Parts: sequence; C-alpha cells; structure tokens
Amino acid sequence: MANSKYEYVKSFEQNTTLLKQTWIVVRIDGRAFHRYDFQKPNDARGLGLMNAAATAVMREIPDVCFGYGISDEYSKLVTTVVSTFTAYYVHFWPQWFPERLLVPPLPTFDGRAIVYPNKDVLRDYLSWRQVDCHINNLYNTAFWALVLKGGLTETQAEEELRGTVSADKNEILFSRFGVNYNDESEIYKKGNVLYRKYEEGEAEKAMTASENFLQEPLSKSQRDKQRKRKSKATIELVHVDIIKDAFWEERPWILG
Amino acid sequence: MANSKYEYVKSFEQNTTLLKQTWIVVRIDGRAFHRYDFQKPNDARGLGLMNAAATAVMREIPDVCFGYGISDEYSKLVTTVVSTFTAYYVHFWPQWFPERLLVPPLPTFDGRAIVYPNKDVLRDYLSWRQVDCHINNLYNTAFWALVLKGGLTETQAEEELRGTVSADKNEILFSRFGVNYNDESEIYKKGNVLYRKYEEGEAEKAMTASENFLQEPLSKSQRDKQRKRKSKATIELVHVDIIKDAFWEERPWILG
Amino acid sequence: MANSKYEYVKSFEQNTTLLKQTWIVVRIDGRAFHRYDFQKPNDARGLGLMNAAATAVMREIPDVCFGYGISDEYSKLVTTVVSTFTAYYVHFWPQWFPERLLVPPLPTFDGRAIVYPNKDVLRDYLSWRQVDCHINNLYNTAFWALVLKGGLTETQAEEELRGTVSADKNEILFSRFGVNYNDESEIYKKGNVLYRKYEEGEAEKAMTASENFLQEPLSKSQRDKQRKRKSKATIELVHVDIIKDAFWEERPWILG
Amino acid sequence: MANSKYEYVKSFEQNTTLLKQTWIVVRIDGRAFHRYDFQKPNDARGLGLMNAAATAVMREIPDVCFGYGISDEYSKLVTTVVSTFTAYYVHFWPQWFPERLLVPPLPTFDGRAIVYPNKDVLRDYLSWRQVDCHINNLYNTAFWALVLKGGLTETQAEEELRGTVSADKNEILFSRFGVNYNDESEIYKKGNVLYRKYEEGEAEKAMTASENFLQEPLSKSQRDKQRKRKSKATIELVHVDIIKDAFWEERPWILG
Repeated sequence: MANSKYEYVKSFEQNTTLLKQTWIVVRIDGRAFHRYDFQKPNDARGLGLMNAAATAVMREIPDVCFGYGISDEYSKLVTTVVSTFTAYYVHFWPQWFPERLLVPPLPTFDGRAIVYPNKDVLRDYLSWRQVDCHINNLYNTAFWALVLKGGLTETQAEEELRGTVSADKNEILFSRFGVNYNDESEIYKKGNVLYRKYEEGEAEKAMTASENFLQEPLSKSQRDKQRKRKSKATIELVHVDIIKDAFWEERPWILG
Repeated sequence: MANSKYEYVKSFEQNTTLLKQTWIVVRIDGRAFHRYDFQKPNDARGLGLMNAAATAVMREIPDVCFGYGISDEYSKLVTTVVSTFTAYYVHFWPQWFPERLLVPPLPTFDGRAIVYPNKDVLRDYLSWRQVDCHINNLYNTAFWALVLKGGLTETQAEEELRGTVSADKNEILFSRFGVNYNDESEIYKKGNVLYRKYEEGEAEKAMTASENFLQEPLSKSQRDKQRKRKSKATIELVHVDIIKDAFWEERPWILG
Repeated sequence: MANSKYEYVKSFEQNTTLLKQTWIVVRIDGRAFHRYDFQKPNDARGLGLMNAAATAVMREIPDVCFGYGISDEYSKLVTTVVSTFTAYYVHFWPQWFPERLLVPPLPTFDGRAIVYPNKDVLRDYLSWRQVDCHINNLYNTAFWALVLKGGLTETQAEEELRGTVSADKNEILFSRFGVNYNDESEIYKKGNVLYRKYEEGEAEKAMTASENFLQEPLSKSQRDKQRKRKSKATIELVHVDIIKDAFWEERPWILG
Repeated sequence: MANSKYEYVKSFEQNTTLLKQTWIVVRIDGRAFHRYDFQKPNDARGLGLMNAAATAVMREIPDVCFGYGISDEYSKLVTTVVSTFTAYYVHFWPQWFPERLLVPPLPTFDGRAIVYPNKDVLRDYLSWRQVDCHINNLYNTAFWALVLKGGLTETQAEEELRGTVSADKNEILFSRFGVNYNDESEIYKKGNVLYRKYEEGEAEKAMTASENFLQEPLSKSQRDKQRKRKSKATIELVHVDIIKDAFWEERPWILG
C-alpha cells in the first residue's frame, strides 16, 4: 500500500491467465523421492499417504477436481495446489510411517498446470495416464521380481527386460516367479481415482449449476451453494478402469 | 514412456521459460493466515517460524538467493520453492508453537516469480519491500496500540488513522501510549534479510564463478564446486537497512 | 546454420504456442487511419478496399477462416495474416482510389490473436462484433448528420448525442434529417461477413475432413485435398445477421 | 463501446507484455521468397528494396532501432513493424523492379520479437547475425559459382561443398573461377547495418535522454523532443564490421 518511488517495480509482474471454459489439470511430481526408500515395486503406505494428501486437497479446495474455475491466474492456481498437497503430505507422514521420523531434506513437490480445450481431450489425457500406469507397473513388477526374487542385479534385470512386450513380462512373472500379474492389486494396475460422491439428488444440482456457469457466471449465492454442496460431498477413492465409457456414464456429474 | 494413442495429449503442455541473465524473485504469500490468530501487531514466534522455513529453503536449494539459475522453467522453479517452504513451515510448527496442535486447514502458501532485468531494478524491488515493511509496521503498531491499549474498536482505530502521515502515527504512539517507535525491534521495522555468509576467501571465489557464468555456462565440475561452496556457507539472518548502499558494499558477493 | 560462439543467443527466443483444438480469431486494426481522410460516416471505397484485402487473405491463406490450424505459433500466425492484409491493401489502393496517389506515411495495421475455447464463445464473439457495428454505425450516422447536414460543430454533436439511446438517435435522424435508419445500407448496419462457398457436395467433404481432424491429425494427402477444396471455393461477401441461428444453420460447414 | 451481453468475450484476450528495460529485436523473414526468382547468389536490387523498406520503418517508427520503448505489448509491437515493412516493400517494388509487374501472390513477411536482457547479449546477437551472414554468403558464392559457371547441377554442387571449411571454399572460388572472395562487395560479406546519424551535439542529447529514461520515465515533452531529434536524424546504411568494438565506440549513441 505504501507509496514510494520504488513502486514502479510492480510493473514488472506478469500475469499469465489460463484460457477460460477449458479443463485444467494440475500435475504434481515428487522431487527426488528415491531418497525416501519406498518399498519396491510399490509401497502401499507411500501410496496411502499420497492419497491422503490428495483427498485433503480436494476437501480443502472445492473447485479442484471439478476441473475449472478455481482461479484463472496460473501461478496462484498451481502453487496453491502444490502447497496444500505438500502441507498435508508432511502433516500426515507420521500417521503412515510412525517408525520413520521425518528429517530434512523433507519431501517436496513441483507442479504444472496444463489446459485442455474440451472433454474429449481431457478423457484422452486421463486414459494416457492410466495406460502409462499399467505399462510402468507391469515393467516394475517384473523388474523387481528379477532383482528381489531372482537375484539379478538392477543392470541385469534391465537388460533382461529390454525389448520385451507385455506378454513377455507376464510370462517371466508367471513361469519364473509363479506370479499371475492379473491377480495383482487393482491399486497398482489401475492407479488411484478420486472424485466427489454426492448424496441423492445433489449431483444433478451440481451439474445444472456448472452447466449454467458455461452460460453466465454464477452469482455469489449460487457459488456459495455450489461450494457447500461440494464440501458435503464425500471424496471417493477407487481403482477402476477410466478409459472405457462405463465409469463416466455412471458418474456423469464428474465432467458434467 | 508408454507408447499409446493417447500420447498426443502431451502436446498440450506449454513451457514458459524465464528470460535468462536476469534476476528472479520468488514471492511467497500465506493463504488466509488470519485463521491462525497470530499475535498483533507482530507475532515473534510466527516470524521465527517463517524465517526457519526460509532458511531451510536457502539451505536445500543452493541456487536460491543467488538470484538466478535454478531453472528457467517457470512452473518448476516457483512450485519447488513454494513446496519446500510449505514442507518446512508445517514441519517446524511444533518447535515454535508446541502448545498449538496443527489441525486442518493447514497453513499453505501461494507464490509467483517476477523477473527483473538488472541489478538496479532488483535493488529497487528490495528497497520497495523495505519501505513497505516500515510503513505497514508503523501503521499496525499504531492501530493495535489504539485497539489493545486504547480500547478503541477496529473501526474506530481505522478512522483515527485515516489520513495521518508517519509523524502523526509516531506522535500518537508517544503521547498516548508512551511508545517511542524508534525503540521498536529492528526485526519489525526492517524486516528479515537472509543471505549466505562465506568463510574467508570463499566469497571471492563464488563471485568469480558467477561472473564467469555470465560469459559462458559453468562446467559440471565448476557447478559442483559452486554448489559445495554454497552449502558450506552459513545462512545469515539480519534486520538491517538494505536501501542504502552500505549493506551491499560490505557484502559484494550477494549480487556479485 | 553457421556455428559460432554467439549462437547461444538463440536460446533467448521464446515460442508462444496457441492452445490446439480451439478457435483462433486474428483481429486487425488500422493504425492512425484518420490520416487518410475517408468519407464520413462511411466510405464505400474504403470499405471496398478493406474487403478486397480480406478476400485476398482468405484466398492466399486457405486455413484462415476455417478457424484453426494455420500454425500454432503465435507470432508466425499473427504477423503472416497482418503482413498479407497490408500487402494487398497497399497493392489494391490504386484500383479503389485512382485519384489519390499513395504517399508515405503508408497505411499499416496491427493485429492480435485471441483464442476461444469452443464454438459457443466464438459465436458470442462474432455477435459482439455485430452488435458493436450496429451501435457504432447508428451513432456515427447521427453524429455526422448533425455535423454535415445540421451545421453543428463536432463538440456540439457529441454533446447532443450524450446519453441518448438508440430510439433517440433514430428519432433525430428521422425528424431532423428525414433519414430512416432502417433504409441505410446493410453493409453499414451489419458489417462485412466473408466465408467460403463450396460447390455442391464439397462442403460436406470439407466438414467431414475437419471433424476427423478433431479425432486425429489429417494425413498430408488429406490436408492437400482439403487445401485444394478450399482454394476452389469462392469467397462470399455478405452483409447479413450472424447473431441469430439462421445464418449458421444454412452454412453448417463454416464452423463445421 | 457498445454494451451487450456478448461483451464477456473480451475477457479472453491475453496481453503478453515484454520485459521492460531490455533490448527488443524484431526479426522479419520473407515468406516463400523463392517465388520471386531473385538473382543468385545475391540480387542487388532485391537487397536495395529490403533496405529501402527497412529505412522507411526506421523513419516512420522513431522508437525502432533505439532498441526499446515503442510498446511493451508484444502483438502490437511485432505486427506494427511487420505491417510497416510490408507496406513499404510493396509500395517501393515498382521503383526497384520497374519491368516486373507485382502480381499475387504478393510478397509478405512474418516476424517475431526476441528480448535480450542487456547490451552484451544484444551485441552477441548482432555478432551472431554477422558471422552467419559471412558464412552463408561464402557458401552461396561458391555454390552458385559451381552451378552457374562450373556447370554442376545443384545436387552436385551441394555434394562438392559438403564438409568443406572456409579455406576450401575460398580455394575453390580462386583456383576454379578466378574469384578472390575478399574482393566481393562488403554489402554481401558484412550485411546491412542501419542506424540513426545525428547532427553535431544531438547524439549526446539523445543519449542523455535515454539514460535518464532508465532512471525515470521521460515526461511527455521530453519524449516529444526525443522523437523530434530522431526524426531529424538521417538513417545511415553501412556494410561494416559490427563484431569488433570500433563500430560501437565510434557511435556510442546507438546503444547509449
């Protein structure tokens, strides 16, 4: 507020706004997480902590996961989501790893926002992530089976898997280690899907409200209602196929 | 890594790079911090916690506070700094407020990067912040004296101060509350200045290294040395004038 | 291509890409066109020259006015359109103003690209322009009638019209100058609308091609066909309502 | 100005501002200029036309070539320069190619602005362009000698020159075609350098004015004076070394 001859420096700030009426994805990546020695190929508690932090983000920032609207200012949106995720990750750590005192360097994250112009591209983005999850998990399951159960070095395991396709990796797992990849947990094969679950009738109202939003901005009282509706919703965590239409047809309000 | 027909969505990502050879400031703001009921007008422990988190950021990210270089990718730079600050803020909370259990909503932050083209504008930016700090603190000191010691409501205090200049606020503090503003702590009047302090001879090497950097990129081994030099440096916290030249002339390596 | 120690400067270039699968509008404005003394309130030849240049842009850049695709690089898209428009404007000038030798300062233009996320917002953009055209033209018609026929100074005319609504301006035109605004040329009331008109059956093929484009990029041969289709199309210039649905329903291929 | 429900679309416009107190280069490229069949390896009249258009840009836009200031809005700056260049290029064509009637497709240009943070990087940029000019011109001179005088096909000439260094090309030119590359015109070897030349004493005033500008914005009357000073200056066209310091030391006002 203070008036001084130095204030001209404010003019160096640049606002990058995100295109309105689009779908914004904020992607968060852990920084140097190999330092934390999570179990290979998957650490159930590490994933649980991630989901707990993500659930907290959805609870605290109602606009998130509705896909648009929280803010059109790039920096503010991304840093708010990353900061909230980090705060809960550090806060919940002792609940998930009570035996491992958290000491510096602490777990931190970076993030970026990506704008998708319509629902089809957004669905393709989510499908891409799920395909990626499957392929990476199959690789990691085979890789760590070769290392942990097969006694190979990491370099040997890498070489063994070079050039193999999915069928080969399934075969390695089954014939050498008696592991049927299909029996692996859905959480590892499908990843984690979080969404709001509304009570009877509330989902329709939320959808109508956001459809209207495309026509004209919601009034403050409408926005307050929408926000209340969302904060009453429960956050569901599932590990299911989101590539096929079924998931979306049964939950039309998510992209509604 | 997985190849799938959905991968085209990657093309929607946009990289905003920051102009090289400039001075980058990452500004971090607390979100809705009124929720945490810090003491008025200044909360010594709240400030201590902030400084502890900021010190940790400088310790963990060596490139920070050297002013440039950590990354030219906007999102990655800003979210990394904000995430690291948040992690330490939440982590250190129990040390500073042992009697106040941290419960959701947790403290979170947003941030933005601003690019300044040269040292002069950067100094003006820092001067602007310090002038702002002084003027806000004088206002807040007078305001909370009127409320806490003078028995005024917040609205009455606001009205009382409307249109007053610095001399008026000094006078109110002195004549009504016996407070000599000049005797207030430098931490409140000058704010918090963090910088790296090198051992004998190391500062010159750090400067030379970064001057060369302007000519040609440092080699990996030079960068490693520079990084080691910085991680051995101690982080100094002072509350002094940074508007006049003296501070900078005595510590030429900071903007060197 | 030359390798030299100066090449690092290339790294200062920034590419701003436009969001794909959106509708891009390039808006072109004349710079200081008051210098050219066009007739008031409308100069038929000036408009004709504008339309000739715009038609040439559509003829020369087949992707333009199909709304997307010419390039996702902001600068290249905008400067190409503005440069092509300028070239034809200067080139066609002698045909429209044979008696007025073009001398420096020559007519020049600036431009900007705006990205709209979907067809609805694009239609709203076009509606906004047409409403603006109508309201400005009514104002200008009344203003210049007061000045040219009514003998008022420009300041007096401005004052006379301050605070008037459309009905008032219609009344002024009718009662004082016997002008029925409804009888004015559609070109001034509705503006200029340019679009491609395809021969029997070709529009459907063009639409199908671009719908497919939303699914997957066109192959080179498909793009060549699409380009040929467009270059055979004639450029239509009309002055009709584009706010109501009729125009678009009769020409589904334009936004197809 | 018209108020309508469609006006919300204005909010989709984005302003990209250029960092202040930096050096802005607008680079202009001809689009598909092979269509115009200029003489190989260099077309003196084609270059003359280019220089005439560039000189007109400098005359018409006083802020250009002083390096900063014309506008901090990216689109407006770039499109204005490109449009002005295009207008004069088309306008001057008949003076340079009286025997070649200009017919569509007309010559057009695209452009981009690049921001350099300080004088050193700007000088490196200009050095890069001049090194590039020299190397390309040596290649083209040898290539077209092989084709036009040596009777090779373009493919054969390309193969002949693959892997050669400067000395090899000089040797080819000299031993096969009796051409001493050093005797070639400076315009082809050094490129074209345009700058403002002030009358006695005026350069100092222009420099002082722009130095002050770095401290505080010029007042309107100061800017008017500066503009007048520039429009009285003559535009010099030279073909000299701009890599070494001499050029800049003799003309300190250019980057002053």
